[in-house]
Amino acid sequence: MRIALGVAYEGSSFCGWQSQPNQCGVQDALELAIKSIAKHEVKVHAAGRTDSGVHGLGQVVHFDTQVNRPISAWVRGVNAHLPATVRVEWAHVIDEEFHARFSAHARSYQYLLYNATVAPALMSTKAGWFHLPLNVEAMAEAAKYLVGEHDFSAFRASECQAKSPIKHLYVANVKAHDQYIIFEFTGSAFVQHQVRNMIGALVYVGKGAHTPQYLQELLHKKDRTISPPTFSPAGLYLTHVKYDEKWDLPNQQLTLQRSVQVLI
Amino acid sequence: MRIALGVAYEGSSFCGWQSQPNQCGVQDALELAIKSIAKHEVKVHAAGRTDSGVHGLGQVVHFDTQVNRPISAWVRGVNAHLPATVRVEWAHVIDEEFHARFSAHARSYQYLLYNATVAPALMSTKAGWFHLPLNVEAMAEAAKYLVGEHDFSAFRASECQAKSPIKHLYVANVKAHDQYIIFEFTGSAFVQHQVRNMIGALVYVGKGAHTPQYLQELLHKKDRTISPPTFSPAGLYLTHVKYDEKWDLPNQQLTLQRSVQVLI
Repeated sequence: MRIALGVAYEGSSFCGWQSQPNQCGVQDALELAIKSIAKHEVKVHAAGRTDSGVHGLGQVVHFDTQVNRPISAWVRGVNAHLPATVRVEWAHVIDEEFHARFSAHARSYQYLLYNATVAPALMSTKAGWFHLPLNVEAMAEAAKYLVGEHDFSAFRASECQAKSPIKHLYVANVKAHDQYIIFEFTGSAFVQHQVRNMIGALVYVGKGAHTPQYLQELLHKKDRTISPPTFSPAGLYLTHVKYDEKWDLPNQQLTLQRSVQVLI
Repeated sequence: MRIALGVAYEGSSFCGWQSQPNQCGVQDALELAIKSIAKHEVKVHAAGRTDSGVHGLGQVVHFDTQVNRPISAWVRGVNAHLPATVRVEWAHVIDEEFHARFSAHARSYQYLLYNATVAPALMSTKAGWFHLPLNVEAMAEAAKYLVGEHDFSAFRASECQAKSPIKHLYVANVKAHDQYIIFEFTGSAFVQHQVRNMIGALVYVGKGAHTPQYLQELLHKKDRTISPPTFSPAGLYLTHVKYDEKWDLPNQQLTLQRSVQVLI
């Protein structure tokens, strides 16, 4: 039997999503907690393998089990064995053709950037920070150059294992909310560090070092070595994963409500 | 020379505001950081001595120093010696008649409560949690009984050191914001655990165990032992301290903008 789960986690106490020999991944904590309920080893597959320090708000995973448990066991039961910084939000019995990663049509990320002279004490693990005033309109204009199907090599980590740097970005929005700036991206898939590298380049535009067209130049040059540095993982949230409606997953009704804007 | 500082901190990594022999208080971290800049021992006095796990958004403190440093040294210099979860937001040279605690006219607290079946992974240290649906209107009506000058013995910790249980509460608001409920309280001063104990009683009303008049009954009975339990410190924020305009402190212009609502 295949079970899909909706999972949220605070990434700062983990070394990333992926399982590690020293068990520091979110995947390790989740597999161990599920094992406590299933009474057998499980392997969990996730829609997005987030980096160390990156948060999950709408992560979707699946695993296979031979045991029959009520749905509440996969939610409340598993949660009883998880650290407080990881929660299973829903569970759903699903056809074995479903794969959390390969069935996903699109992923959405949001980046929360605190723009003030002093860093945010209360959000030190939950927001990026830039101390000089940023031009939000220039960044919003620059972000539009990223929309569409592009070779994202300029924003791709050297260790990226994706088969191709060509991805389709559907949405790239930048909005100010008091002293915070919220960046929203939805795409078919993302190369490694893509969002954090795009934020790095957008901040260069925002501080006035470049015009918005700079993003188009970077895309055309396809050269990571001349692109601005990777921004902090602290502000990055995997907010939503989109699947075909036929799977009838609970998160599809939520659309993007469960975004960083409604965290408070 | 007396210096006033505006301080923000994430309370979950500290044992409360107050200095402790093992140096686990926010006060310890701040005194140590100021000493690095002043090059002499300092004693810091705060407007509100928050409990373990309670957050500071608008804490105000003062200290005395013999050295003359630019204001930026008391902000950026001190911040360079503080953990990322504590930030000095502003510094202000002030008359020696000013006292962060005794000159304060009013304190404002907000309590952030997550009301959903599953606890909040990303806000586990930053919000209280209640799993059953709460009636926000009933809680808002109940909170109105707390406004005014009252003997708050029903909401006072046994170890409270305040001279009197009689305090004046000016504001008690309850508002829903998606799955969060935000409680706002402004008062002359608060007895120990007052806000967390009031939240405990309001949650009893919200879940339907009592009518809103229950809060009035508790006030009249003045008996902590028959009042509902103290709620979690995780959702509590000291958001603002009000002083006379003559002190010209930067936080007075901010009013309550710097509230949990704009943290995102």
